[in-house]
Amino acid sequence: MNQFDNIHPIIWENDQLSLLDQRLLPGTSQYVTLHSAGEVATAIRNMVVRGAPAIGITAAYGIVLATKRRLSEGENWRSMIDQDVALLANSRPTAVNLFWAIDRMMRCLDHILCDPPETIYAHLLSEAKAIHEQDIAANHTMGQWGAALISPNSTVLTHCNAGALATGGFGTALGVIRAAWAAQRLRQVYADETRPWLQGARLTAWELTKEHIPVTLICEAAAATLFKTESIDWVIVGADRIAANGDVANKIGTYSLAVLARYHGVKMMVVAPTSTVDMNILDGQKIPIEHRSPKEILQYAGQTVAASEAQAWNPAFDVTPAELVDVIVTEKGVIEQPSSSKMREHMQSRGI
Amino acid sequence: MNQFDNIHPIIWENDQLSLLDQRLLPGTSQYVTLHSAGEVATAIRNMVVRGAPAIGITAAYGIVLATKRRLSEGENWRSMIDQDVALLANSRPTAVNLFWAIDRMMRCLDHILCDPPETIYAHLLSEAKAIHEQDIAANHTMGQWGAALISPNSTVLTHCNAGALATGGFGTALGVIRAAWAAQRLRQVYADETRPWLQGARLTAWELTKEHIPVTLICEAAAATLFKTESIDWVIVGADRIAANGDVANKIGTYSLAVLARYHGVKMMVVAPTSTVDMNILDGQKIPIEHRSPKEILQYAGQTVAASEAQAWNPAFDVTPAELVDVIVTEKGVIEQPSSSKMREHMQSRGI
Repeated sequence: MNQFDNIHPIIWENDQLSLLDQRLLPGTSQYVTLHSAGEVATAIRNMVVRGAPAIGITAAYGIVLATKRRLSEGENWRSMIDQDVALLANSRPTAVNLFWAIDRMMRCLDHILCDPPETIYAHLLSEAKAIHEQDIAANHTMGQWGAALISPNSTVLTHCNAGALATGGFGTALGVIRAAWAAQRLRQVYADETRPWLQGARLTAWELTKEHIPVTLICEAAAATLFKTESIDWVIVGADRIAANGDVANKIGTYSLAVLARYHGVKMMVVAPTSTVDMNILDGQKIPIEHRSPKEILQYAGQTVAASEAQAWNPAFDVTPAELVDVIVTEKGVIEQPSSSKMREHMQSRGI
Repeated sequence: MNQFDNIHPIIWENDQLSLLDQRLLPGTSQYVTLHSAGEVATAIRNMVVRGAPAIGITAAYGIVLATKRRLSEGENWRSMIDQDVALLANSRPTAVNLFWAIDRMMRCLDHILCDPPETIYAHLLSEAKAIHEQDIAANHTMGQWGAALISPNSTVLTHCNAGALATGGFGTALGVIRAAWAAQRLRQVYADETRPWLQGARLTAWELTKEHIPVTLICEAAAATLFKTESIDWVIVGADRIAANGDVANKIGTYSLAVLARYHGVKMMVVAPTSTVDMNILDGQKIPIEHRSPKEILQYAGQTVAASEAQAWNPAFDVTPAELVDVIVTEKGVIEQPSSSKMREHMQSRGI
């Protein structure tokens, strides 16, 4: 455990899954304990936990909970698990890590179907823990790859929260920022407040200030002026799904930043583990984009903010075409100017 | 009075100035009555009233209040008024209409210094009312000029509030939208919620829904995706100051929209009366940009939202270079692809 391992969004302990309720941060640090796949699916949908890798890990533990319960319910247990998996798979549509983790868990289960119940449970729990631990390890590796790209005395902007809270720990984009900060390469970190859910103001600022990394929030509307008037070197973001051609689905506003960054000569870095890459989707236009409730825009803390008859359009993600991305960093290494062939080569490699 | 004249941000009645407190909208419609230039300056600084033309009109009435009080205070009255004017001039730095209105009022005063007190007061009040009425008339004229540029079945996006609330009445950007709606040229109106003060969600949506013009709010972060995935024809905004070369200072986020609009082939229309044009400032880089309190970003309704040690960078305005503006509309007509020579010619003309 090092200085960066003090944020734990997902905890499996005493055969129980606990999630740090990210809706209450930064004011309150409170864990909720979940007992079934249904509860896990609801927690994902309602954003108790969010961030593509964190959702994947949570769903993996959800399958462990489902297996424990269904194994005790008799002979139909395997088909009951499929129903639980369907609940999990329907919780949120965009982040592919959810489906990746479910697939990995189900492949594991299908190899050990004839084992005794205790063995099945132990195996699946071990697989979920491996997913969790490998994610943290991947983040540390990506932190090093990404930080190596950053020149000393750089200033960076990040969007949303791609930190410890969005992953098993340490973070993707914030993993790079943490590593670059530790290597004394950063002069200044800016973070978009990230409407409507304020992940930047509530979560990213909380993570960074907790570790005494100074962070300055901006409204998304100020990014273009920041690029024009301050000297910004990199935009560093995570991803919810990367298509086979390198197109990147990420939190709404990422595409805007990518266009503005290119216009101002600021470089764009996307940091995501290979579990976020979906080689089955040829390009970003085919990535399903979740639209969330207009209430997220029209209300604040349950109170109506906007005029009462106003409508709102609330896509939660957008797609940044590969040509606007300077580098994608995975745990296998760095892909510069991503393209279909570079993505294929990278995914087939054993890492750099 | 027509269907669009039901919003009155500034009322002079019974020798009193009343302002609709825009901080409380849309939930509460409450007027505050002001008695001195100091109170007026504070109201402008604290955004009881906001919007470049509305600030100018309010300051003009502020000088009427100052004159009334100082005339009754004896022989130093003229220099006391200068102190009041300094208070008004220091209330907000970016919108030039404030200084334009103060200059116009002071030139009027200096022509009638030797008149009896009642005559001075009556003259200044008449001048302030003329500024107010001419602004409303200019808005109706601009509405027609701007609407004529919009093809039937168009979809537009506006930013912040450049409506009746930001002016004497009817609005600049919203004046064009009102006129285009009345002419049945609009299919859909989108409005940025406009962080951090939420002028779009609170004020623009309130104005439009009051008149049954359907409006859909988006977060600023979604504008690029809106441009890419929906068919948007125009971005229509107001201005706080237009430099002699056509550069436009307006609410933070306008520059971002201009870059994104150009990238996606969406046209950009700036609507502002000639009182917003500052021919003494050669280009936008020299326009003073107000930075407001970080609390506007870090807090909501007095409650801390962001992590407690986070900083915030809160420029209230940005500058859009003329080359990203397709048309500027004033009460004199339309300037396509604005430039220094076109601006000079336009300002010297008697109107189209």
